[in-house]
Formats: sequence, structure tokens, C-alpha cells
Amino acid sequence: MTEVHIIGAGETKFGELWDRSLRELAVEAGLRAIEDAGIYSRDIGILYGSNTLAGSLNWQNDIGSLLADFSGIASAGIPAIRVESSTSSGASAIREAYLAIRSGEYDVAMVGGVEKMTDIYGSEILDVVSTTLDREWESFFGGTAAAMAAITARKYMHDFNVEKEALAAFSVNDHANASKNPNAHYRSKITLETAMKSTKVAEPLNIMDCSPVSDGGAALILASDKFAKSVGKEGVVIKSSAISQDYLALHSRDSLYTINSTVRAGRTAFEKAGIKKSDISFMELHNSYSIYGLLEIEDLGFAEKGKASDFVMDDISLTSPLPINPSGGLKAKGNPMGATGVGQAVEAYLQMKGKAKERQIKEPKYGLIHSISGTGSTSVVHIIGGE
Amino acid sequence: MTEVHIIGAGETKFGELWDRSLRELAVEAGLRAIEDAGIYSRDIGILYGSNTLAGSLNWQNDIGSLLADFSGIASAGIPAIRVESSTSSGASAIREAYLAIRSGEYDVAMVGGVEKMTDIYGSEILDVVSTTLDREWESFFGGTAAAMAAITARKYMHDFNVEKEALAAFSVNDHANASKNPNAHYRSKITLETAMKSTKVAEPLNIMDCSPVSDGGAALILASDKFAKSVGKEGVVIKSSAISQDYLALHSRDSLYTINSTVRAGRTAFEKAGIKKSDISFMELHNSYSIYGLLEIEDLGFAEKGKASDFVMDDISLTSPLPINPSGGLKAKGNPMGATGVGQAVEAYLQMKGKAKERQIKEPKYGLIHSISGTGSTSVVHIIGGE
Repeated sequence: MTEVHIIGAGETKFGELWDRSLRELAVEAGLRAIEDAGIYSRDIGILYGSNTLAGSLNWQNDIGSLLADFSGIASAGIPAIRVESSTSSGASAIREAYLAIRSGEYDVAMVGGVEKMTDIYGSEILDVVSTTLDREWESFFGGTAAAMAAITARKYMHDFNVEKEALAAFSVNDHANASKNPNAHYRSKITLETAMKSTKVAEPLNIMDCSPVSDGGAALILASDKFAKSVGKEGVVIKSSAISQDYLALHSRDSLYTINSTVRAGRTAFEKAGIKKSDISFMELHNSYSIYGLLEIEDLGFAEKGKASDFVMDDISLTSPLPINPSGGLKAKGNPMGATGVGQAVEAYLQMKGKAKERQIKEPKYGLIHSISGTGSTSVVHIIGGE
Repeated sequence: MTEVHIIGAGETKFGELWDRSLRELAVEAGLRAIEDAGIYSRDIGILYGSNTLAGSLNWQNDIGSLLADFSGIASAGIPAIRVESSTSSGASAIREAYLAIRSGEYDVAMVGGVEKMTDIYGSEILDVVSTTLDREWESFFGGTAAAMAAITARKYMHDFNVEKEALAAFSVNDHANASKNPNAHYRSKITLETAMKSTKVAEPLNIMDCSPVSDGGAALILASDKFAKSVGKEGVVIKSSAISQDYLALHSRDSLYTINSTVRAGRTAFEKAGIKKSDISFMELHNSYSIYGLLEIEDLGFAEKGKASDFVMDDISLTSPLPINPSGGLKAKGNPMGATGVGQAVEAYLQMKGKAKERQIKEPKYGLIHSISGTGSTSVVHIIGGE
């Protein structure tokens, strides 16, 4: 069975892009990925569009067709469908593209993730983002994504005697790395003090614990052994791909602060890759809220439950033994939902290819990319690198 | 590489189901499919949720997680993602499940399609359904799905001198078949005269040319050779699966009445299956509007362009050489969008297994299932049957 290679990647700047539309963002990212791969658009076998909210927010469904149309591949008959799994849509779309190539049906698959979140009046975005929770049991009663994260954070901090500094430190690291990423939503460094004193959103979470409302697009070109060889393209191998699941509603889970889907997907990803945790050179984690960054470090097996704070407070910077979120992460690079997971993979690809410039990690061996949907119902883990 | 077998199928009644929620409909269909397959839910490797409108209409995204949660498979870690390609979401989800099994990653995949369209005030459904068109160039200017179909119908009838009777006859056949389907939305037979005289929606289309606003759920269990053999289950083989694409906006297409995506997907499906058109015993076509039924007969190669009216006016009933829409079709069985394509496959499976009771077609050899998204941007064709 063929390996799957990332042979091209591209993204737009993430941010409040008032003058750019959903389709423009998608096309810009897509064309950059095609150019980076050095292929023709007609080489693409299938397009997976990743988008979370456009049906609720931009009044546009059939995002696959929209992307195929405006990137100029529709008339060639190149099929396009949308994959949605809330905030892990991008990672799920990468996985579908991976399976499509592994099935032997396609040699080249494109993944295009996009979200246009600022086309809405003020606080209405809260309602729209709440469509990723359980509508009947959570959001209908006023539950928001931030409120759910806050419940988890409070219980976690209480049970393990964790101070708020550890959460804030995760965001501080994100901002430090984003200051070196020209595509990041926020390029300003922040201090622990700024983060701690920022506006409260849902106690104990401040605004500096919460990823922003971003617009953006990101795209990848995946290819089979055969195609990668035929175009003489040395890409980066997707060493393993894993996905797992837990209940949608937080109250149904075994634990408020162990993300079972992450535990399972992480375990499977390492088993499939046949590598050790110490082989991982960097991780892109899904800190839609800072608390999730800490939980994921634990649930992926890099710290004991309740101990991620030591890990984070110690050192997770670009020069540490295990840098986290070199891109700037969801907090500072930004979180345009459908594009987020694809953007994480764009960063991991750049790092592995030694193209991450100012934020380049020294000689990375393997990179780990992790996304969760909402509060953790779906988790997707990809490990890239190696042979 | 393994063949993919349909080993179980189930669906709810389609209709205006005021007392049933989105999740209830999905679970009911899913449990029926699992029961029909005679498997345990823990045997499922992955769940593909098909849904088109819930983000816009029910304020619920992450339909994959919702379905996994409420069907009781989430806690086992069985991953679930949503596939959306407008009105062809169900067919696209079947194709993703097919690829997932072909990739060797999964032995059993479940496809669950659901839509709850009646949870909205009156005519607002028009706006929601219009999210499947090009928002910026079609629906923003007032274009509706019916209006687009009417433009196509008018041009087609003019250019080929086709009378309205042929369109009406397609719907009459649907209602005749649906009268024998206990799960159909409308079980009343109608006459050509009734259809011709029904309320105008968008000239030349009457209400009897338009599929209704339906609630419903449908589910399939697909399995690899290995799994099907291990449980001693003789399913129905998916002989071929094909998907193709055209522009999203109708005005960008080469022709108003040739659906290029259908031409291409149909051709590929027959090539892959290695069978002749005359081997097809029945077809489930996507008549969201009656005109599309006629165009699809032509674009799949069963009549010359402009000549489907002869084909339809001749005989497409259950006892004809090539029965169309034995289920009752989108017009009379109903069109709960995310469930529609899955429901078409449920019918095809029942027909192949000889379980379609009153509407059973005599000794079917192969069945063809066809879905389009919106006005035809994506087309998906599956041929089932044979070895």
C-alpha cells in the first residue's frame, strides 16, 4: 500500500480580513499549495473542502463545490466534497484525503480549509460557534464554547492544585512564536502578567486564554509514492493518521479533564508510526482554549494527568526539547475553524522541510499534529516525518 | 483490494415528522441498519454522517459526533465525521465509506444520513435550501432551488420542443411507486391531470414537479470481503462508485440542460463496473425537480439529449424494462436532503435482496443510484449488484 506524502502547502494570513471573502481565502491558499507542489491543477484527483461554520454564518453550504469552482478545477470534473467535524474539520479532511490515496483510487488529493468568521454582527458569533456543541443539551441552555472550557479548567485546577499561570504560560508561548510568523493573526508578544490580567471571559479563563475569531485559508497537496516519484518531489511522509471519538456533550464523558478521544487517537498514532514519544521534535496542539493545550500534553502521553503545568512552565519554546505550537498556535496564529487543522499541518510541513525561517526548529525528526472537535468529541492525530 | 458489500440497511419513514428530532431520526435508522446487518455496534470501524442543512436550520454542526453519541458508539471510540456535498451528501458519504474500506483501514463502515427540515417557520426553508446554491451569485439575488430548476426546464422544453406532460409523468410514476412504500412521505397516487393542474411554483414547474420538504433518516452498513465472510452475510456488492464535478453556479456551466458532472460520473461508473447499460435493471434518480429526472436519463446515456420525454412517456413503471425510482423517488418518497442519497441506496439494496415487497422488481441484475448536488455541481453514481 502506498505511503502518503505532503508535497505542497500554502496558506493565507490569518486575521480579521474584512476585504476578503470565503472563496477568495480558499482560492489564495489553494493556489499557493499548488505552486509550492509544482504541479498542475489538473493533476489533482479529488478535493476535500474543510469548513465548519459557513452553513450557519455565511449562508453557504456545498463548500466543496464552491472551492472546486473558484479554484478552476470544477470544469475538469475534479470532484470536491466537504468534510466537517467541528473544529477538527481540517484534520478530518486530511485524514479523508489520506484514506482516498491509500485506497488506490487517487494519486493526488488536495485539502482546502477555509473559514470566514468576521462576516457577522458582534456577539452573534457566539451563537454560531455554539453550533459545535450539543444543541439540545448544551448550547440551547446558554452553554458556549468558552463556558464549557471554563468548567473543565476550574475542575482541573481544583483537583490538581494547578495555578492559572500555567494556562497563561501556554498562551505566552503562542504569542512569542507568532511574533515570528508573518501569517499569524496576532504578532505581538505578551507577558505572563498581561495574560493574567486580561479581561475575564468565563472564569477562570481570560481573553488571553481564548483563541480569536479569525478568517483564513490553508491548503495541502497530498500524493502517492508513484506520483511523488514521477514529479521528483521529495515531500514529507504522513507516518501515521489516527482518529477517535467520545461523547459530544461534555456531561456524558467519563471525566471533565481527560479527553478520551485524544488518549485513544494518540495511542493509535504512535502504534501505527512505530516510534517513541521521544522521537517527536515538535507538536502543534489544539489550544482553542489554553486549558485544552495542557490536557492534550497529558492525554497524548507527554505528562502525567495534572502535571502538564510543570511541563509548560519549564520550557515549550522553539529551543526547548519539545517545542509546542511553533506556528503560534490557535491563540496567536489564529483559529479560522475549517482552516485551523490544515494550517497546523502547513506549519508542520514547513518545519520538516526547514522552511520555517525565524521560527525554524533545529533538525526536526517527527512532528505531531493534533486537533479536537469542540470540547473533545473527535480527536485526530497525524505524525509526519521519517521514511 | 477488497470489494465493498452493503450488508445492512435501514430507514425511518420520510415525512413531516413533528414529534421526532434530528438525532432520534438518525438513531432509529442506524439501529435498523445494525439489526438488519446482524452485527454488533462495536463491529463498526467508522461512521460517516451525511447531513446538508443542520448548521443552517437546526443550529447544530458536528453531526458526526452527534450521531456517534446518540447511537451509543462514541464511548467505544468509533470515529464519526460528517460529509456534506449539498443534496448529494448521502451519496458522497457512501463513497467516503467505500474508500475507507478499500484503503484497508476499516472492515466495517456505517453511513447515517439525516435531515430535519420542518423545524423552521414556513417559507424560511427556502432561504435555508438556497444555501446549497452559489450564495454570492445566485441566492443573494433571490435565486432559489426551484427557480434554477425552472430556468433549466424552460430552456430545455423550448430547445427540444418537449411538452410539460413528460415532466409531470415522471412525478406520476414516483407517486405510483410510493403508494407501495410504507416509508414514503406521500403515498397517494396522482394522475397526469392532477400534476399538470397543480399550483405553480416557478413556471413551468408546478408543485407536483418539486420534491417536498421532508424529515427522515437512512443508514447503511458497508463491509469488506473479510468481514462479510466472517459473519456469513451475503450482502450486495458495490460494483462501482464514481463522482464528478462541474461549476457550482448554473450560469458558469457549458449548458443549462446537460449536467456534465453526471455525464462524467456515469461514464466512469460503467467503465469501472465493466457492464453495459442494458445490464441495469432499475435506477434511483435524483428528481429533486422533475426536470432533473429527465436530464439524468439522458446524461447517464439512456436516451439522447432531448429525448428522455419519449422514454418517460413510454413506460418507467415497476414492470417496465427499466423501472425508475421504485422507492417513489424524491418527489413522493421524499427528500430529507442528508438522508436522501442514503435512502436511495437503502431501496436499491432492498430491491437486490428481493425484499421490496409490493414494489419488488423481477430478478434485478444491477441497480444504478444517482445523486446530484444542488443544480448539478457534484454527481455521484453507484452501481450495485453482481459478483
